[in-house]
Amino acid sequence: MFFASDNWSGAHPKIAESLTRFASGYAAAYGTSDHDKLIEAKFNDMFEREVAVFFVATGTAANSLALASVAKAGGVTFCHYDAHVNSDEGGAPEFLTGATRLFPVEGDNGKIDPEALDIAVSRFDVPSVHHGRPMAITVTQATEAGTVYSLDELDAIAAIAKTKNLPLHMDGARFANALVALKASPAEMTWKRGVDILSFGGTKNGCWCAEAIIFFKPEMAEEMPYIRKRSAQLFSKTRFISAQLEAYLENDLWLELASHSNAMADRLRAGLTAKNTTRLAWETTANEVFAVADKDAVARARAKGAMVYDWLPPRDMPHLLGANETLLRLVTSFATTREEVDQFIEVV
Amino acid sequence: MFFASDNWSGAHPKIAESLTRFASGYAAAYGTSDHDKLIEAKFNDMFEREVAVFFVATGTAANSLALASVAKAGGVTFCHYDAHVNSDEGGAPEFLTGATRLFPVEGDNGKIDPEALDIAVSRFDVPSVHHGRPMAITVTQATEAGTVYSLDELDAIAAIAKTKNLPLHMDGARFANALVALKASPAEMTWKRGVDILSFGGTKNGCWCAEAIIFFKPEMAEEMPYIRKRSAQLFSKTRFISAQLEAYLENDLWLELASHSNAMADRLRAGLTAKNTTRLAWETTANEVFAVADKDAVARARAKGAMVYDWLPPRDMPHLLGANETLLRLVTSFATTREEVDQFIEVV
Amino acid sequence: MFFASDNWSGAHPKIAESLTRFASGYAAAYGTSDHDKLIEAKFNDMFEREVAVFFVATGTAANSLALASVAKAGGVTFCHYDAHVNSDEGGAPEFLTGATRLFPVEGDNGKIDPEALDIAVSRFDVPSVHHGRPMAITVTQATEAGTVYSLDELDAIAAIAKTKNLPLHMDGARFANALVALKASPAEMTWKRGVDILSFGGTKNGCWCAEAIIFFKPEMAEEMPYIRKRSAQLFSKTRFISAQLEAYLENDLWLELASHSNAMADRLRAGLTAKNTTRLAWETTANEVFAVADKDAVARARAKGAMVYDWLPPRDMPHLLGANETLLRLVTSFATTREEVDQFIEVV
Amino acid sequence: MFFASDNWSGAHPKIAESLTRFASGYAAAYGTSDHDKLIEAKFNDMFEREVAVFFVATGTAANSLALASVAKAGGVTFCHYDAHVNSDEGGAPEFLTGATRLFPVEGDNGKIDPEALDIAVSRFDVPSVHHGRPMAITVTQATEAGTVYSLDELDAIAAIAKTKNLPLHMDGARFANALVALKASPAEMTWKRGVDILSFGGTKNGCWCAEAIIFFKPEMAEEMPYIRKRSAQLFSKTRFISAQLEAYLENDLWLELASHSNAMADRLRAGLTAKNTTRLAWETTANEVFAVADKDAVARARAKGAMVYDWLPPRDMPHLLGANETLLRLVTSFATTREEVDQFIEVV
Repeated sequence: MFFASDNWSGAHPKIAESLTRFASGYAAAYGTSDHDKLIEAKFNDMFEREVAVFFVATGTAANSLALASVAKAGGVTFCHYDAHVNSDEGGAPEFLTGATRLFPVEGDNGKIDPEALDIAVSRFDVPSVHHGRPMAITVTQATEAGTVYSLDELDAIAAIAKTKNLPLHMDGARFANALVALKASPAEMTWKRGVDILSFGGTKNGCWCAEAIIFFKPEMAEEMPYIRKRSAQLFSKTRFISAQLEAYLENDLWLELASHSNAMADRLRAGLTAKNTTRLAWETTANEVFAVADKDAVARARAKGAMVYDWLPPRDMPHLLGANETLLRLVTSFATTREEVDQFIEVV
Repeated sequence: MFFASDNWSGAHPKIAESLTRFASGYAAAYGTSDHDKLIEAKFNDMFEREVAVFFVATGTAANSLALASVAKAGGVTFCHYDAHVNSDEGGAPEFLTGATRLFPVEGDNGKIDPEALDIAVSRFDVPSVHHGRPMAITVTQATEAGTVYSLDELDAIAAIAKTKNLPLHMDGARFANALVALKASPAEMTWKRGVDILSFGGTKNGCWCAEAIIFFKPEMAEEMPYIRKRSAQLFSKTRFISAQLEAYLENDLWLELASHSNAMADRLRAGLTAKNTTRLAWETTANEVFAVADKDAVARARAKGAMVYDWLPPRDMPHLLGANETLLRLVTSFATTREEVDQFIEVV
Repeated sequence: MFFASDNWSGAHPKIAESLTRFASGYAAAYGTSDHDKLIEAKFNDMFEREVAVFFVATGTAANSLALASVAKAGGVTFCHYDAHVNSDEGGAPEFLTGATRLFPVEGDNGKIDPEALDIAVSRFDVPSVHHGRPMAITVTQATEAGTVYSLDELDAIAAIAKTKNLPLHMDGARFANALVALKASPAEMTWKRGVDILSFGGTKNGCWCAEAIIFFKPEMAEEMPYIRKRSAQLFSKTRFISAQLEAYLENDLWLELASHSNAMADRLRAGLTAKNTTRLAWETTANEVFAVADKDAVARARAKGAMVYDWLPPRDMPHLLGANETLLRLVTSFATTREEVDQFIEVV
Repeated sequence: MFFASDNWSGAHPKIAESLTRFASGYAAAYGTSDHDKLIEAKFNDMFEREVAVFFVATGTAANSLALASVAKAGGVTFCHYDAHVNSDEGGAPEFLTGATRLFPVEGDNGKIDPEALDIAVSRFDVPSVHHGRPMAITVTQATEAGTVYSLDELDAIAAIAKTKNLPLHMDGARFANALVALKASPAEMTWKRGVDILSFGGTKNGCWCAEAIIFFKPEMAEEMPYIRKRSAQLFSKTRFISAQLEAYLENDLWLELASHSNAMADRLRAGLTAKNTTRLAWETTANEVFAVADKDAVARARAKGAMVYDWLPPRDMPHLLGANETLLRLVTSFATTREEVDQFIEVV
């Protein structure tokens, strides 16, 4: 009963196998091998256009270097208040962009409110060295709150980005989970909406370590090779990433795994709703479930082996918890089984 | 016949196997799992003392963050002119230390000349905000020139570090190759010599991706968790590093692989010396061989499948090459076979 | 009728005179002359304890380097949402601290709300590399909204700083204006309240350019000489700062000038309150007045020579302005005359 | 007898006067006043073309931000080994450019050797993220060794900059001294030679504090307003710089002052050459004199009030000093008198 995070799982067997298959022989290092090129080409197919692909070590690196590629002196990036870049990356976005700033914007359910965004960005309409200047907007899809922006909601954000002439970045640490939740194509959820740069995450969805920055306008990536090296994010044996991604993308394994995670979360949502001791804190659609639970029930579940995290209630929900209640974040993954879910629901 | 670099090889079968073995089940993320702790403990055994261990993504990251841990405003790190940090890390050491400086020092055969080092460091003896201030000395073992510092040579450097009260860092991207060349123990080649921080490299010696920063005085590592996260170098599924290192260290596989690489380099050295068309540019003892070769011979070898790099002659050897000669850097690895070596010697 | 900002005025005659007096002769450079030491000693007297004093070029530099002196990887500084560091320094605090972050906190009238601060800081109580870690709290006295923290209000902030073991910084760009408004001594308004580091501003109050960072615990300043030089903020001819400050502090000229500014602001407040076309947006006590005014009246005043800025209404006062109204920020200075004030009140 | 440095002098009376004259009245802040614009226009006249002018606080800031304006990830700037940026700016060029690197090049008499420069830059001809990439060349005029590049020598450096498509920066901390030594016009010594960016220093030549960055192609300065603000180098009361520069440039006062300094250095050179106890370490032409002197003679001179600094012999002159000899750096300024020079020659 492990629902602490989707990064507590290991690697899918097919991905481990692929790594073993590519272990022998020689290949050019630093992303220049034929196999690396082949994998990059698969991203072109997936996104239905030519893209520039850069492997990096972590999701934090993907976000930080994506923003670094559009950084400028006095730059300000607009994000949701609870965005991973703002809350959980230990200052890496600031550090790796050369000290630009994040400007947190409010919004319900982990999604940027377009009206609040417009007001925030518009405060910079009159150029001023004192205020600094907008450099990017970033959204997380699926969000840190387990919700998913609809295509219309993405359009609303993208319209502001376009009006203000700002690049739009998407943190896709759980890209696949959002995709299957929306039943959209990768192109439809990204550049067709106006997304310019994507952090494509594979690690949380069954890879060991597979994160890539995707530029939908390859000409925006010209500085990236130097930016990536400067940040010590250029792997030498890039084959070990390519090998994972080959299996990950093959026959849409990645979508299959995400569908499974989401289905397990659905089962969890249904089960928790039916219980007396728990209720959903808010509606989610991807592989994260936020549940308000009785502390005693949680203690009992933990005693029986449930691994779950208490979570801080959002700032805008100060009265979420009743006496003796706690907020749980429950995350499912490719490895979650029905049995785990059912057992947890039973013991909580 | 692949001698381009030791990072053109893949992963040793035992390391691939170990990864597969650890692919299933759940484990705490971000380096906090029991298995991670177990591997860290193995480093204590290996080094015969308590050490602090930090996994990072690349050798460049290991070097840069090791220096970041001792960085200060106006800081200056002394290194060999041709040190990897100075020549081949794309500015990462400067960037990830918050803009400290590298001070290149001369020395034959890729090794810092202790006298030149003493002069260089002593120029900072009178404190001055204008000049900045020494913050570290870094040596590479084995060096970028394929040579290995003897224990006495390390002592000479360490004596200066001690006199000037400076931390001593060792870039051990090819740590194992140096170790077997010297027939020394890990402790003897590091903290017993005065080394404070080690970049321990496994990638070039048979891992997919396994680099660690080792602090011999764990109290020097207090800031490292935040420094590592800030640089986006904290893996989530750290198990995939631990699993590699488990196999790497098990039954001294790592030393066995390095011994093999070095032996293949020995064979290459002997073979090239015996040829008319080639000669050794200088003596090396680890798994890199630098050979002056007739350009036509090299062209013929390449036509027959040899993958070798031309190298820039060192700045202090301007007359190394005769007419129609080129300098080759030849690197052997755990994957190099006798047949490859013999075939190359034959065709060159 | 110049009320655009207190930095539109020049220098007080006594300060200009003092500069002329010190123009001849030789003096050691870079802050090491006897005269520099003499001025530093005056700060000891003023603050009734030994302090460390560092001249820098701008108020932005003073704030940024004060924070740099306590910076650490993953560091987070808590400030008011509308604090100068957060809104008007073009990213300098982030850049010059090596990419630490600012965490904006709400509060009425430009003052940090202690409860909101406590909640914000407490979110970091459980150590986490992902969240980063608190490194400082900063308050502005007088605030950017023209208000002044009472001593009790400072105590409330300082109590949190103490509980959380955080250094407390005060941005004193308008330090003198706050001091005379509170009728407090410099010691009472700073270290006796728990302030550790002060940005002491002289420029807005009659100097050409005189900004200093004051450390109330000199041992906290050990790194500052290198931090200041690294940021290119070490003047060579420091005499030109010392000469200004000599006149500035002599016979409490600085307090006299600030009293004048505040009195002119009082006169402005009284006059605007009495008009039909204007009203105070909120109460202020220092030398800034925020007035809601009829746009036509403002246009007429400008036509007659009034130099005043329109200001953005605070985010938490979305309904401040009626139809055809604008918000004005009016700043008085040592150079403001009664005639200017009276004329402006007449024409607006 | 003060020959410690030209920044030990104060301000020329005409400059002090000008400051006093501009002390009253109101003027727009942050470099936007009419008077600021007027002074900027004078630079257009002086350089015989439209230039972009940015005042900053120190010479270190001028150099650092000039380089920041052309900075890029992995960037490398080529400078002389003993250049001020490399030796005496406490790491500011690295820090304020976002952690780019300096690459020291050899050359006699403080001047970059064009052949050595060509070799150094050419090592980067094959693009490589590992090596980084050239971003600028910087020369100091007059040099830190008291010498002056001839126009031909500047042409040789500029030719390499042009071939390699690199911007050429000139550190003109002692610009006026070089100009009068060469009897060249400002245009002839800068953009007509190929210089793109100039650090124009007034402080060492009679100003209190007047440093400017001059862009000869104004379109290269587009990012500068944000870069300057981010580094806390934007003065509010810029009038206090403009007022100094008005007097400085009026009737070529600046050239008159530099001629005087150089003449005093000539007198010093002649006098020291004629003594038994001293000799010139090398030929200089600007306002710095490097003399090898008998230690006892120096001690006697100091006892009689001479203020002179011992200097470290250049790295390439290890045998410069005989037994009981020391190297002195003697700097003259606008304030140096014949009497001081003659007295020093007598007592040494």
